[in-house]
Amino acid sequence: MSERKRPVGRRPGDPDVTREAILTAARTAFGGVGFDRATIRAIAADAGVDPALVLHHFGSKQGLFAAAHSLPFDVAALRKTIVQTPIAERGELLARTYLTVFGAEGSPMLSLLRAAATHDEAARMLREFIGAAVLSHADEIAPGPESQLRLATAASHLIGTVIGRVLLGVAPLANATIDELVDLIGPTIQRYLDDPSAR
Amino acid sequence: MSERKRPVGRRPGDPDVTREAILTAARTAFGGVGFDRATIRAIAADAGVDPALVLHHFGSKQGLFAAAHSLPFDVAALRKTIVQTPIAERGELLARTYLTVFGAEGSPMLSLLRAAATHDEAARMLREFIGAAVLSHADEIAPGPESQLRLATAASHLIGTVIGRVLLGVAPLANATIDELVDLIGPTIQRYLDDPSAR
Repeated sequence: MSERKRPVGRRPGDPDVTREAILTAARTAFGGVGFDRATIRAIAADAGVDPALVLHHFGSKQGLFAAAHSLPFDVAALRKTIVQTPIAERGELLARTYLTVFGAEGSPMLSLLRAAATHDEAARMLREFIGAAVLSHADEIAPGPESQLRLATAASHLIGTVIGRVLLGVAPLANATIDELVDLIGPTIQRYLDDPSAR
Repeated sequence: MSERKRPVGRRPGDPDVTREAILTAARTAFGGVGFDRATIRAIAADAGVDPALVLHHFGSKQGLFAAAHSLPFDVAALRKTIVQTPIAERGELLARTYLTVFGAEGSPMLSLLRAAATHDEAARMLREFIGAAVLSHADEIAPGPESQLRLATAASHLIGTVIGRVLLGVAPLANATIDELVDLIGPTIQRYLDDPSAR
């Protein structure tokens, strides 16, 4: 799937191919070593282009970071899937999706978390992303009173679990399978999503 | 309480007073801006000593970091309190203690998390600390099968909540009181601590 391999039908010098190759390399680098230690030079080398071309396309490392994380996946489609799933099944769906998508090595969320830990700008980026992509839809995803607080708490649990599992490598979490974690955590997420006034 | 104020009965040049003043300043600096951006110079200035004296006592910024976080609080005493509390009350106790102690500005745990996000050495330090201080006592704290996985999951939830509340500043979490969060999260932590084979 890597566009660095220049698939049939695309010209080697195609700007879109080059741009995607740089973004793919950037996500891998930021997710792997964080914002500070990722270098334009190494990202360019991984993408097979000149560092000057990276700056031409994205202006700066920060610009590259923003571009690499602006839409790491189709947020709207994921939200649609969640809303179309019966509420009683959303806890497991959210836990499985989050742990699978964001817990993978090179995940944009890991990259963002690493950056947010030391850069106010990245923290703001992630906070705004969570607000716009997730919390502003809390009424749909977790109907009932305090929907934003319940959804934010569920999200914070999943973020913490990915941090413990991938970033810190805490043994019991790192050694568990996704299925084991979903069995354990899914019911908790479900509890946060369920309307507390309907209990 | 600050030892920088040189309490009565201590000589101004007392090495213990100086050492504690440096450690206090270091914890504030690491917790505030992270490992990378904290400087020996600024920490020395905050402690009212010469930077050379900081290096004399701790060797390097990394040595200072290790010393500042080796025992940020009395782990043994906290563990004793938890074990002496009836299991059915431990969920609330853990949630309240964690959110209060580690969620405060300048908390060593925030400092460690910031550092761990970008430095493998700090991630290792935190992982080893969690292993030794928490998980190795899982049988006492959360008796039953899979005690380490259940306790690690509970801890990861609390870490994630502090990250969302303090580090990212996600509004619903940042605006909630500790009591509101304990009401919401305490029962989840309790569920993880309860022996699943006794359900």
